[in-house]
Amino acid sequence: MPDTHLATHAQPSGDALRQALSTRFQKIRARTAELAAPLSPEDLMVQSVADGAPAKWHLAHTTWLFETTVLVPCNPGYRPFDPAFLTLFAARDDRFGSHQLPSPTLRLLSRPNAAEVMRYRDHVNAAVLHLLNQAEEAELPEIADRVIVGITHERRHQERLLTHIKHAFWSNPLRPAYDQPPQAVPAPPQPERWIEHEGGMVEIGRTEAGAGFDHEGPRHRVHLGPFRLAALPVSCGAFRDFIEDGGYAKRSLWLADGWEAVQTEGWQAPLYWEWRDGAWQIFTLYGMRALDPAEPVCHVSWFEADAFARWAGKRLPEEAEWEAVASRCDSMGNLLGTGHRHPRPSTCHGDGPWQLFGDVWEWTRSPFTPYPGYRLPDGVDEAVHGRFMINRMVLRGGSCVTPFDHANPTTRHYLRPESRLSFTGLRLAEDA
Amino acid sequence: MPDTHLATHAQPSGDALRQALSTRFQKIRARTAELAAPLSPEDLMVQSVADGAPAKWHLAHTTWLFETTVLVPCNPGYRPFDPAFLTLFAARDDRFGSHQLPSPTLRLLSRPNAAEVMRYRDHVNAAVLHLLNQAEEAELPEIADRVIVGITHERRHQERLLTHIKHAFWSNPLRPAYDQPPQAVPAPPQPERWIEHEGGMVEIGRTEAGAGFDHEGPRHRVHLGPFRLAALPVSCGAFRDFIEDGGYAKRSLWLADGWEAVQTEGWQAPLYWEWRDGAWQIFTLYGMRALDPAEPVCHVSWFEADAFARWAGKRLPEEAEWEAVASRCDSMGNLLGTGHRHPRPSTCHGDGPWQLFGDVWEWTRSPFTPYPGYRLPDGVDEAVHGRFMINRMVLRGGSCVTPFDHANPTTRHYLRPESRLSFTGLRLAEDA
Amino acid sequence: MPDTHLATHAQPSGDALRQALSTRFQKIRARTAELAAPLSPEDLMVQSVADGAPAKWHLAHTTWLFETTVLVPCNPGYRPFDPAFLTLFAARDDRFGSHQLPSPTLRLLSRPNAAEVMRYRDHVNAAVLHLLNQAEEAELPEIADRVIVGITHERRHQERLLTHIKHAFWSNPLRPAYDQPPQAVPAPPQPERWIEHEGGMVEIGRTEAGAGFDHEGPRHRVHLGPFRLAALPVSCGAFRDFIEDGGYAKRSLWLADGWEAVQTEGWQAPLYWEWRDGAWQIFTLYGMRALDPAEPVCHVSWFEADAFARWAGKRLPEEAEWEAVASRCDSMGNLLGTGHRHPRPSTCHGDGPWQLFGDVWEWTRSPFTPYPGYRLPDGVDEAVHGRFMINRMVLRGGSCVTPFDHANPTTRHYLRPESRLSFTGLRLAEDA
Amino acid sequence: MPDTHLATHAQPSGDALRQALSTRFQKIRARTAELAAPLSPEDLMVQSVADGAPAKWHLAHTTWLFETTVLVPCNPGYRPFDPAFLTLFAARDDRFGSHQLPSPTLRLLSRPNAAEVMRYRDHVNAAVLHLLNQAEEAELPEIADRVIVGITHERRHQERLLTHIKHAFWSNPLRPAYDQPPQAVPAPPQPERWIEHEGGMVEIGRTEAGAGFDHEGPRHRVHLGPFRLAALPVSCGAFRDFIEDGGYAKRSLWLADGWEAVQTEGWQAPLYWEWRDGAWQIFTLYGMRALDPAEPVCHVSWFEADAFARWAGKRLPEEAEWEAVASRCDSMGNLLGTGHRHPRPSTCHGDGPWQLFGDVWEWTRSPFTPYPGYRLPDGVDEAVHGRFMINRMVLRGGSCVTPFDHANPTTRHYLRPESRLSFTGLRLAEDA
Repeated sequence: MPDTHLATHAQPSGDALRQALSTRFQKIRARTAELAAPLSPEDLMVQSVADGAPAKWHLAHTTWLFETTVLVPCNPGYRPFDPAFLTLFAARDDRFGSHQLPSPTLRLLSRPNAAEVMRYRDHVNAAVLHLLNQAEEAELPEIADRVIVGITHERRHQERLLTHIKHAFWSNPLRPAYDQPPQAVPAPPQPERWIEHEGGMVEIGRTEAGAGFDHEGPRHRVHLGPFRLAALPVSCGAFRDFIEDGGYAKRSLWLADGWEAVQTEGWQAPLYWEWRDGAWQIFTLYGMRALDPAEPVCHVSWFEADAFARWAGKRLPEEAEWEAVASRCDSMGNLLGTGHRHPRPSTCHGDGPWQLFGDVWEWTRSPFTPYPGYRLPDGVDEAVHGRFMINRMVLRGGSCVTPFDHANPTTRHYLRPESRLSFTGLRLAEDA
Repeated sequence: MPDTHLATHAQPSGDALRQALSTRFQKIRARTAELAAPLSPEDLMVQSVADGAPAKWHLAHTTWLFETTVLVPCNPGYRPFDPAFLTLFAARDDRFGSHQLPSPTLRLLSRPNAAEVMRYRDHVNAAVLHLLNQAEEAELPEIADRVIVGITHERRHQERLLTHIKHAFWSNPLRPAYDQPPQAVPAPPQPERWIEHEGGMVEIGRTEAGAGFDHEGPRHRVHLGPFRLAALPVSCGAFRDFIEDGGYAKRSLWLADGWEAVQTEGWQAPLYWEWRDGAWQIFTLYGMRALDPAEPVCHVSWFEADAFARWAGKRLPEEAEWEAVASRCDSMGNLLGTGHRHPRPSTCHGDGPWQLFGDVWEWTRSPFTPYPGYRLPDGVDEAVHGRFMINRMVLRGGSCVTPFDHANPTTRHYLRPESRLSFTGLRLAEDA
Repeated sequence: MPDTHLATHAQPSGDALRQALSTRFQKIRARTAELAAPLSPEDLMVQSVADGAPAKWHLAHTTWLFETTVLVPCNPGYRPFDPAFLTLFAARDDRFGSHQLPSPTLRLLSRPNAAEVMRYRDHVNAAVLHLLNQAEEAELPEIADRVIVGITHERRHQERLLTHIKHAFWSNPLRPAYDQPPQAVPAPPQPERWIEHEGGMVEIGRTEAGAGFDHEGPRHRVHLGPFRLAALPVSCGAFRDFIEDGGYAKRSLWLADGWEAVQTEGWQAPLYWEWRDGAWQIFTLYGMRALDPAEPVCHVSWFEADAFARWAGKRLPEEAEWEAVASRCDSMGNLLGTGHRHPRPSTCHGDGPWQLFGDVWEWTRSPFTPYPGYRLPDGVDEAVHGRFMINRMVLRGGSCVTPFDHANPTTRHYLRPESRLSFTGLRLAEDA
Repeated sequence: MPDTHLATHAQPSGDALRQALSTRFQKIRARTAELAAPLSPEDLMVQSVADGAPAKWHLAHTTWLFETTVLVPCNPGYRPFDPAFLTLFAARDDRFGSHQLPSPTLRLLSRPNAAEVMRYRDHVNAAVLHLLNQAEEAELPEIADRVIVGITHERRHQERLLTHIKHAFWSNPLRPAYDQPPQAVPAPPQPERWIEHEGGMVEIGRTEAGAGFDHEGPRHRVHLGPFRLAALPVSCGAFRDFIEDGGYAKRSLWLADGWEAVQTEGWQAPLYWEWRDGAWQIFTLYGMRALDPAEPVCHVSWFEADAFARWAGKRLPEEAEWEAVASRCDSMGNLLGTGHRHPRPSTCHGDGPWQLFGDVWEWTRSPFTPYPGYRLPDGVDEAVHGRFMINRMVLRGGSCVTPFDHANPTTRHYLRPESRLSFTGLRLAEDA
């Protein structure tokens, strides 16, 4: 459950709040540093996709948010680490004014170097902890709100950092590995199983008092027909069958825009799949290795997910269907904290559902639109999610690089239907 | 009500069916020719938008569909007018194989010339009427189905022909008029009025036996909260207020993609608005003239509609809300048959709603997605609408250039959110 | 010899000048109308290359120049045919201000229609003839200068009109013919023959008093080594040998930019060559027909000409070499006036050189740069040629669609090295 | 004088040759390492222009050439440092096969890191020195030829390394400096002075036995008219006058393609000039500083040089004119070895010419074409310069980042006319 809960609603005593916040703040900051640890100063520079960012920028930008939105407004005596950084590492949209750098510039920032950015992190870490310790009781709620926004923000950048570094390493012909692979665990074959749901009126969305972002509410009722949801996400083996059956060449399986993407981009398999010496290999954060048919398929666009479902005679779930099932069970898979940097085959026995949370984000057939009664908050700054409510599809569940606190039954992630960069997979559904 | 009804469900006797079809066929063919009558051979050549088409192509392509899908398969002795036309005027997507011409080629077809295309129409008209007259009783239902597809298809091209020729004439610095304007009728000021709806469970979508396309069904239940729908579409005067209040410069009113479109395209007003000598002029199919604040605003993108609604403190309606209101009343405005080539100010008294059908297509906040239980039909050919169920928004109601039969409470039109070429406006809604 | 000579230097008596000018004016105007005669109103609309123009525009624009630069300034009482035309048909560069239309707009001008443009031509023709007849003796030289600029200008547009309509018809899948082909004349095989030149100091460029444009002077001395020039231009048969020897696939034959063009554009043969049923066909103004190996190769870029010469173990001539040979002989081929609309095989016997003038423009290895002592004239208007003295290569000799008066030993034509739209071929040279 | 001379013609004894080569090899390798010394591992990664390269790539690629063309073919027992490097750092054109990486990939190579690339250099350095020491006498000339090609190659990359790192640092908003500026020396005002040349027949180009590349010969005679060449390159002060006189806004000063570049690129001053607080600043390898009006103007395109010359009522020199003057005198300025990283104001007294060699490359009005009698060498590999003989203009003299040995009276450098990245300036000429 996300820690937005913590400040807004639990109202602990001042000291307990100070301590809880300090702990969470230090944890998130340490986790980010840990994620960057395997990277050399040069690795931290690489930006291989136009709208991505180098890891160094993620390290600095998350720090910048604490400096700009916590330290500068709440601590009048605070001296910025380097005034130039206030614009150098600003957000890339213009929420915070017009000083932000264009994306292509980020990869040019050899100065400040890695060591200086780590000093910047240390400087801000110390100042935030000092502030939490020294602030007047009356100021604490306001500070807490701001710190929690920063924590949430950094959590999202953790996922992006790994997403971007994966692509960066894949773009290097040497194909370096980010990390050592863990011991492989034999996974038993998994029979096809379905979770039944009777449909009817269900309630979805976050409660006022609950965790999550404004775009995940208001809670409201939706009428569903009876349906079935697959117990497991679609596996690489199943997707390989789709490929071998000519799925990428059958126009009738694709929506018009999807077919155009197939033609234009030359898609013949998910991102990071490579055909070598008569077999599929995939690139992972552990380097290149043979495809494991048992593991969930990953890095497919919505178009590919939709075409696969049609080929399989099924469909993608509605987001309300997914949430209706997910809110009834605790179906945990591999999230960031488990230390796995790639989706894993299921080792589960029994009915499921399994791996609803973690391993791969699951595309739904729901466009990202406002829930009934939702209004875009005042101020572009606060409306950071609501402003993308067009041309994007909802994903649910979180992936193996998603921080634990971000994976909830009500969490709504959203991406353009052609996007394949994130750890995106799918789970089938059908009418009962 | 669309004439799909006619063949599939009414099952009249053979002769009555022959006669009814012949009448409808001749009517639609005559109407298209009538729409092209004001155009010179050179006018018929112009193609001013990349994915549009010259009027001559619309004339020939609608004919080609009858030739290819009615005459060739149903009349073994039929001799094509010119075998080259079978590929020259084929559909531009690849439903019918790969012979179609790329869009930019259409405007290069000086040969065949206008006179030859009109002879092509006459030839096919005679052959279809002959077939309807001579066909065996047993073949008639199959032929009827095919003819009705062709009629429906031509109806859609009538709207496109006027939409494209409007842009073509606007692109000519001489700004020629397509037609003489009708007598203006004084329109009284219209107070703001709202139609109340109590919400709850409503049923939407076409019935199995009813009119319409497959993507407009299946009929299903939707749960709505109580809401209000404006009695009239938004007027040019209201939209001018939005402009004068700096609407196009206030980033907080726009979704992120909309704001990007504003910047990239340099939007400062709806398409066809021009600021001349201190006042707004608009280009219509009657040529340039002063803006009439009382008439419905037209040629706005979904992004502009959405931003306007936010500025007004309202929102766009859900398509289910729109249909729930429209199915209770008969709110007719100006459709193609009324002979008006531009949306008209309302002259109505009383509560409304007014002009739900006709004048302007009304953007909803609903993405174009499949209704519950909908499956893409087999074959790309039949799935012509369903294949666009991504990245498009639903419009309802029809415009002043929409044929009468195409405007139903259940009709779902769809366009990309940045599109402004069609006669697109909006009607506000709000939660009750 | 161009008629610039006429006015500037011959100084005939007033009446003789009136009469000579009237004759020349009527001739050029009639010739243009004659070239447009085979074209329908729709043909006159087609613009198939972005920086080309529809034939209707050529008809109107050449008229516009006489109206704007002769009638308006020299005849105070002149009433323009239509004031809108003064901007509608203005030159497309901004020499004459900023009212010109962007190129893509030209193809949208269905109005004025063809008939009205012909009336425009008649109106201006009558007014110019009237002016020539009525003008005061003292004003005559100034008027003559202006009329001659207009005649020269129209001559250039005659070549462009045919160049553009050829591409327009080729872009139509029906491949219509512009004209009926003349009787074919059997051409004997032509042995390889070379014209020897001893080199040394030669004089090139127009004389002060002579015909031509400013960029073709000043006359100056150039030192040449001894060389040989081929008696005939390269034939289609020889170029086919180059293709069959893999010329388009051998990187070592191409300059770097040429190789990039081959890759990017997918060149595998000259423009208008098509491989059908095991043999080369070419598109001509007479429609598609089999390749004639004996006729000069045409529609090759400079890159292709250069690669061919390297393959043949020869080189392209310097423009000074070409002129040194051409000024010694009278080697006429087919120019516009001969009525042939495609280069013809040589039927000549003896030493040659043959076809130096006409049939195909011949690429030289000389970049288009100023001659020693040349200065760009004041005013962009007058510097129309000099302003292109970068990134273009010189061509010599004229083609089958070049008006007679434009083909002189000193004439310098120039095109970008990747250009293939014009009737461009080559003639080989080598060091002696 | 370039050291190509050394091996090919001087024919020293074996031991002297071994020693001379070893010395030159070590010098060039040490100089490159010295140029990279101020750069951090991150700086070595930056690639700010699409067709540029990161400094790390320059370090590795120059090493790769010695490994590939000297060690692998001449030392059968040689073991490559890392077999992957044989393709990773290959030349970017396809002279050496198709394994080279596309330019955008170069900036993604975080691995191998800087330290490993320096070890690669050391490994190859030791192996080459060992080979020079141990090779049989008979093999020595072949080895010498290959080593000298590598030295010449590395010299060119030294200039590029500094050119690219300058742009990289300028692209960083922090505007870091590459080096500490030297002590400024007061420069006296320099009157306008001209060098007279009587013209006539001159000889230009390298002699068979002389230094230089094949494209700089054959030596041949050219006829020149009498002319004057400016004693000094154009200064920043003079160029500022051009700007203040509206030079960038006067269309008549520009060739057509130049004017288009001004519009498209938004040029208003040379590259690296910035208007700040009412004065011009320029970015140098020493960081931002005030413009010094006395120093030569730098980083102008050929279009700007040409427009400036026209504005000044002069012209650019022919390359033969420049060489005719340069071959008569020894006019040395600042080249790479002097340690100045920016052009310097002249401190000279007397007639001049001054600074013909060094400080700034000087644009001529000569397109880069083959000299009479030149033939492209067999094999794309050897034709490395000749293959660019189209669409490029000749520059003469070398700049402050050009290695000494590369600056000769006969040296022909060449760039596209729109290029501004190199240290390019100009010197005026006029007809006498």
